[in-house]
Amino acid sequence: MAEAVRHDKTARQLRLLSDALDSGRLGPVKRLVNTLSPAEIGNLLESLPPGQRTVVWGLVDTEDDGEVLLHVGDEVREGLIADMDPDEIVAAVEDLDIDDLADLVEDLPGTVIDEVLKSMDRENRERLEQVLSYPEDTAGRLMNPDVVTVRTDTTVDVVLRYLRLRGELPDHTDHLYVVSRRHQYLGRIALQALLTHEANTPINALLDDEQPAIDVGESAEEVARQFSDHDWISAPVVDDNNILLGRITIDDVVDIIREQAEHQALGAAGLDEDEDLFSPVRRAVRGRVVWLAVNLVTAFLAASVVGQFEASLEQLVALAVLMPIVAGMGGNAGTQVLALMVRGLALGQVGSSNARVLLWKEIRVALLNGAMLGTVVGVVALAWFHSWGLALVIGAALTITFCAAALAGVLVPLALKRMGYDPALAGGVILTTVTDVVGFLSFLGLATLVLLR
Amino acid sequence: MAEAVRHDKTARQLRLLSDALDSGRLGPVKRLVNTLSPAEIGNLLESLPPGQRTVVWGLVDTEDDGEVLLHVGDEVREGLIADMDPDEIVAAVEDLDIDDLADLVEDLPGTVIDEVLKSMDRENRERLEQVLSYPEDTAGRLMNPDVVTVRTDTTVDVVLRYLRLRGELPDHTDHLYVVSRRHQYLGRIALQALLTHEANTPINALLDDEQPAIDVGESAEEVARQFSDHDWISAPVVDDNNILLGRITIDDVVDIIREQAEHQALGAAGLDEDEDLFSPVRRAVRGRVVWLAVNLVTAFLAASVVGQFEASLEQLVALAVLMPIVAGMGGNAGTQVLALMVRGLALGQVGSSNARVLLWKEIRVALLNGAMLGTVVGVVALAWFHSWGLALVIGAALTITFCAAALAGVLVPLALKRMGYDPALAGGVILTTVTDVVGFLSFLGLATLVLLR
Repeated sequence: MAEAVRHDKTARQLRLLSDALDSGRLGPVKRLVNTLSPAEIGNLLESLPPGQRTVVWGLVDTEDDGEVLLHVGDEVREGLIADMDPDEIVAAVEDLDIDDLADLVEDLPGTVIDEVLKSMDRENRERLEQVLSYPEDTAGRLMNPDVVTVRTDTTVDVVLRYLRLRGELPDHTDHLYVVSRRHQYLGRIALQALLTHEANTPINALLDDEQPAIDVGESAEEVARQFSDHDWISAPVVDDNNILLGRITIDDVVDIIREQAEHQALGAAGLDEDEDLFSPVRRAVRGRVVWLAVNLVTAFLAASVVGQFEASLEQLVALAVLMPIVAGMGGNAGTQVLALMVRGLALGQVGSSNARVLLWKEIRVALLNGAMLGTVVGVVALAWFHSWGLALVIGAALTITFCAAALAGVLVPLALKRMGYDPALAGGVILTTVTDVVGFLSFLGLATLVLLR
Repeated sequence: MAEAVRHDKTARQLRLLSDALDSGRLGPVKRLVNTLSPAEIGNLLESLPPGQRTVVWGLVDTEDDGEVLLHVGDEVREGLIADMDPDEIVAAVEDLDIDDLADLVEDLPGTVIDEVLKSMDRENRERLEQVLSYPEDTAGRLMNPDVVTVRTDTTVDVVLRYLRLRGELPDHTDHLYVVSRRHQYLGRIALQALLTHEANTPINALLDDEQPAIDVGESAEEVARQFSDHDWISAPVVDDNNILLGRITIDDVVDIIREQAEHQALGAAGLDEDEDLFSPVRRAVRGRVVWLAVNLVTAFLAASVVGQFEASLEQLVALAVLMPIVAGMGGNAGTQVLALMVRGLALGQVGSSNARVLLWKEIRVALLNGAMLGTVVGVVALAWFHSWGLALVIGAALTITFCAAALAGVLVPLALKRMGYDPALAGGVILTTVTDVVGFLSFLGLATLVLLR
């Protein structure tokens, strides 16, 4: 129901917009669009076919342009940027935070990048260059160098006066960072603490040095895990010498978590998470055909197993009718084990120390499932083809295939991980190849041995 | 690589722990465990087989027990609670925030709930009862009633004096809420604003009334979307009369987003996201066999289609060899379309206004993929079985099946959504049923018409 409500809301907006666009009255469209947040406008643009997308993009308030570009996938972003003049692009991005700008800059045309750099003051330019010097998907790329620091040898009163003089703080500032003369990170002071302590309290007394700083080379994934394990709102980033470089805030972490989830969900089907709903057909085909080709190779592998049993299939056509059941059910059972393992590996819960216990558990689950569903399949096969032998063979083959599925479901993701591949992406193809091959081989092989001698 | 680093870290901890447990030296285990955050301890407990889990759980600092229980899945939680005395449970949960306690309370034995309620003061008991009065997965359940409110007719100075008197603020407080005499929500004051403005500034001048309050009946999913669209850290929750009831903080939202992603990833394989890695075998079987049984029914449906063509299969055994390729590839192509649609629907990007454009795009992608991969399959079939007719039939059948996969990939999730079902859960089975049936029917049907007349 919750899903439905949400859907209705956005669908209503979409319909309103669609109607207004069809009627050519752009005034109401503009008003509607500019009541939305940049993230919502980004979402809306992604849901429009290219022609309407261009029209609506032209109606977005110029000051929101930069933020909207941050909230769309790579493919859509390219299209939107292609619709803009260089001047418009410079105007759109020059007010962005450094970490956000770093996120965009690689998608901009080279001449525009020069313009943007020229439009920035020296301090910001150097900050941007510093952030860009770190590899993508590391803490260095996620951090914003704009932090408020204080010294340890002062009091609440002095800090409050300094803050009043300074005026606005960076977004999502919940702590000030305390640094040494050499800008080494010493600890943090909660804004809350400043507000709830007397003016003459020494800053030293409020210093929290328990939260470890994040290393600038840490992976984005590890950063996200630390934030969610410790319920942080923001965290300091330091280099190898403990020099404070910047800070990472929870809003960027939420984006990482969402992107990881999308990457897994789409990656398992061989899709790029940046694929636009309305990709041009050629581009969509290019993005998908490689994956389908890989699957085609494995399908031929399975077919070649079936090909070994042509003589048996000619003698007993019931085998051809029933063989997809064994292979398909094996694939389903294996996918369950794989899904559990992928989650366990992502959370770091599975390793060499407990793999054997897990494997043994999954084999027992497979044997029990095999006994139950094998009986069902056997009874149906008996009723259909009136052969006790066939019923026994298919029940046994299903149990064997379930066991192979359990083995592959546990061992394939472990092996992929050890070799440095993402088990969520490659695991499915390898698993179903195993279950297809074992499914066909065990069913047709047993049938040949038992029924056709 | 990032994955590997993370994995190594946790795996190392696991190994250390495993070794220490094996050697029976519990001192080092206890020290190791109690350097971890409650979320990390929860993660660790989930990665241990039941026997070791009980031992380690006994070593966790009592004061962390409640927080750890919050960070494990339902199945693991039940087991941990079963290991505790009623007194221990009461001690573990009595210091939790109200929203967290509400999360746990339903998993506690009835007698313990009474004890817990008795141990609370009246204000907190009433707050807990209020939170529990809202349905699960709504804003009412997520909110914490512990909020700091101020009046509008005052100054920064007065508020600062009040805060110093009050002392500590609730976790993740980034705004104070301004309410009327009748406790209606009027707007919020950023802690930042209190720190950066002069003491005599009227609170009125700092009031931000732009952020809409969350309705207490809003779904958890919609709450998460609003937080991530607007980069909120916290948000006020109100009832129909705009009376302030509590506030929701980003840490709970991060948990929702993670749970949604897990629900989708495991749900697509027919698993409950609360399944324990080390579930007892019977319980694991019970959790999975229903899903496998549903798939078995659809597998028999597909087999019955094959059964209609027994005569053809007897005449030309090559059909049996090649038929799994057509059905399997159709399933792969359809899964790609389904994954895109599920994401689009979850983000509210797909509705009746753009479904037709999407469908037409996917049909064209299917035709192109069919032309390319159909040719490949046809050439291989030709080389294998030396039959031009068979090559043409399998190429055409693959293209037809791809088109059916595109149709089902777009229309099945739309239909499920409209009927109130989650397309991520049920979509896969229906889709592969369609591609299996169409794959077998088109290939065997065309072959019968063209090759065997």
